[in-house]
Amino acid sequence: MEVTRILARYVVNSRAAEIPEPVRQSGIRSILNWLGCAVGAARHETVDRALAALAPFSGPAVASVLGREEKLDIFHAALLNGISSHVFDFDDTHLKTIIHPSGPVASALFALAEHMPISGEELLHAFILGVEVECRIGNSVYPEHYDVGWHITGTAGVFGAAAAAGKILGLNEQQMIWALGIAGTQSSGFREMFGTMCKSFHPGRAAQNGLMSAILAKQNFTSSNRVLEAPRGFAHVMSTRRNFDEITEGLGTRFEAALNSYKPFACGIVIHPSIDGAIQLKKENGLTGDEVEKIELRVAPLVLELTGKRTPQVGLEGKFSVFHSVAVAVIEGAAGENEYSDARVKDPTVMALRDRVEATIDKSLRDDESYVRIVLKDGRTLEKHVPHAIGSLERPMSDADLEAKFRGLCEPIIGKSTTAKLLSLCWDVAKLPDAAEICRASIRWQG
Amino acid sequence: MEVTRILARYVVNSRAAEIPEPVRQSGIRSILNWLGCAVGAARHETVDRALAALAPFSGPAVASVLGREEKLDIFHAALLNGISSHVFDFDDTHLKTIIHPSGPVASALFALAEHMPISGEELLHAFILGVEVECRIGNSVYPEHYDVGWHITGTAGVFGAAAAAGKILGLNEQQMIWALGIAGTQSSGFREMFGTMCKSFHPGRAAQNGLMSAILAKQNFTSSNRVLEAPRGFAHVMSTRRNFDEITEGLGTRFEAALNSYKPFACGIVIHPSIDGAIQLKKENGLTGDEVEKIELRVAPLVLELTGKRTPQVGLEGKFSVFHSVAVAVIEGAAGENEYSDARVKDPTVMALRDRVEATIDKSLRDDESYVRIVLKDGRTLEKHVPHAIGSLERPMSDADLEAKFRGLCEPIIGKSTTAKLLSLCWDVAKLPDAAEICRASIRWQG
Repeated sequence: MEVTRILARYVVNSRAAEIPEPVRQSGIRSILNWLGCAVGAARHETVDRALAALAPFSGPAVASVLGREEKLDIFHAALLNGISSHVFDFDDTHLKTIIHPSGPVASALFALAEHMPISGEELLHAFILGVEVECRIGNSVYPEHYDVGWHITGTAGVFGAAAAAGKILGLNEQQMIWALGIAGTQSSGFREMFGTMCKSFHPGRAAQNGLMSAILAKQNFTSSNRVLEAPRGFAHVMSTRRNFDEITEGLGTRFEAALNSYKPFACGIVIHPSIDGAIQLKKENGLTGDEVEKIELRVAPLVLELTGKRTPQVGLEGKFSVFHSVAVAVIEGAAGENEYSDARVKDPTVMALRDRVEATIDKSLRDDESYVRIVLKDGRTLEKHVPHAIGSLERPMSDADLEAKFRGLCEPIIGKSTTAKLLSLCWDVAKLPDAAEICRASIRWQG
Repeated sequence: MEVTRILARYVVNSRAAEIPEPVRQSGIRSILNWLGCAVGAARHETVDRALAALAPFSGPAVASVLGREEKLDIFHAALLNGISSHVFDFDDTHLKTIIHPSGPVASALFALAEHMPISGEELLHAFILGVEVECRIGNSVYPEHYDVGWHITGTAGVFGAAAAAGKILGLNEQQMIWALGIAGTQSSGFREMFGTMCKSFHPGRAAQNGLMSAILAKQNFTSSNRVLEAPRGFAHVMSTRRNFDEITEGLGTRFEAALNSYKPFACGIVIHPSIDGAIQLKKENGLTGDEVEKIELRVAPLVLELTGKRTPQVGLEGKFSVFHSVAVAVIEGAAGENEYSDARVKDPTVMALRDRVEATIDKSLRDDESYVRIVLKDGRTLEKHVPHAIGSLERPMSDADLEAKFRGLCEPIIGKSTTAKLLSLCWDVAKLPDAAEICRASIRWQG
């Protein structure tokens, strides 16, 4: 079966009018959430260091570093915005694969939009196609591919970025096949990097490399025609199992892009049900951290595999510590970016409670499920079963939740009035004659 | 064992005076051979298309596209020169791993030399260290890593480029560890791409990505400290076997960089013993193609796995066809770049003889060994056993051979006098106050 060709043909032939309205709405919500995360993290030291290293080598500085004054060439802008959109670990999640879909695709598309005119309608369409491509490719190899050690947001994301950028560039079927091939042969990123600056580097590079792949393919730079299915292609080399039907079946009728979810907490998604339960217990009982003797969690296996860091040293590691997350959530009643600063991770009060959090694996639990049990010093015991964490498809964040998250992220960086304008532009993205207006509006108004 | 740290520490602490003279000589020969290949392929359509696609996005245009007038920023120059140095498949080979070591490392270093002053002595030292790093990492996972489907020149090469550039940038031990980590998490490239423009893209991207990794690490962009050895690091994720002793033992005393070899023929190295035997038989017997009834080869298993293309359609595919290669070698008595043009692959005379070449696997043969049997129309049979192909470590190309190859590659592109000057600069590389003089001298003198 010509898996790569079938997928490429679908992307090339897809028309915006064929995308169902709920999928379009999901696309708009994803773009909004992506932008909030990127602007919110615009001043993160990961972004600062990448910018200091790479800006001296930038080409034509036409593309925005979201939320900042600097401009870069489109490749470097795609990289930087992919980094900032993911560095808080606060972005979106395709729960079937744990792919964070928007970072690679939106970061490539908005950079491209500052190079050539793209209407908001075109951009939204290409965005949905890119997300569809990466999530379907992810589905075809998940979970074995992820279990081997690949950071699937990077490895699958590069295909999505290439497909989306290729759609905007008007690639023909052969060129789209090549774009996917050039992208695939750059597919990379180890889970070993979690807790370091390289984690957010992965979606950044996926955006940059996918964009570059489409631009090379436009000039007829050739690759294999079978990057996905060949015996030495992506699915065989990078996974112990593959199911190509996940890629080719129901194209245009079944949309993975409609299954995106948005994080209420700024950390690894498998911690979310435990944080959710802890915050519910705190609020229902008016708890303070001082009252707590110990916290006992019963969690899905992936929780300790991904977020079992007992003694995180820096904020980025805290995002992969279920122990820090639940402790800080009980103390603060929140798990936003403020709860994952380097200082918060080293705070003696948080550390003391963290040491009293225990987690036990229960293989019968889903990834978004948790049992939280808090034993108080006065002998009482509080319990909460979270069958689906807030932010999951069963308990999605409302538009108002997303707006509140957006404001919380952006206002400290670009101020209230610029944030309000940016929010309004995001909801209206499909009506914009020039999608790049969003990038330009992401910078604090200096007037 | 802290494999990554041990390797990083060695690179950081190595002093040029500690490199034995034969290793230095091998380094000089490697640089010369790399440069000849890159200049020779400067006008290849693979380079043309990459340049057309990417030049509009170039940053400060300080670095040469070897053999051409265009200049690019150092990242794009590293990419383009990595492509051109490999696109003829005529470059060097570390035979223990089939890594083509110079492309990733030299392309990164010479680009960097046009950004900051580097003496020839410094560059040669960093080059040897980079080759050492990539070949040792290759040894630790070969052949299983390659068998899975990874193009090891790309996957291991990115480490070599990062180490070499990091040495020039004066990274400390922690930064060098990060540089290897940032490089490793970009390690990529499928063998599926052989026969397409993406094959030479791999060493190009390895050069570019390794260079970028070192520049990011210089700004303290962090990664895992254990990219090589961690359970979800390079060696476990990308290979079914690993031997870390290959990386850490005998550093500074045993040099993989001394084991480089140079190709006399412009195609996949496993074809070389068969071409060698065919050309010997042609010369000894004054054969023409017309006299040949059929050609029977007995070859190592990797020959048909890598170069079993029966009916190549373009020159790049011809380089991976033992059938085309032996046929054209019997007709022309050569297998240089001219024998792998698109036209030559479609030549009816070559095609007719190609169809009369048979190859049989013999598992007892080494990769550089072959039996060639030519049956003539007059009934005679000629036989030749090649125990080690010309170009192998047992029958190395002499300095004069390398010079002849260099002239054959460069003179059509930059003319005789520029070629002669460039050749002389290469032999004297260690004495140059400014290594970038070589890049600038690679362009045809316009005076």
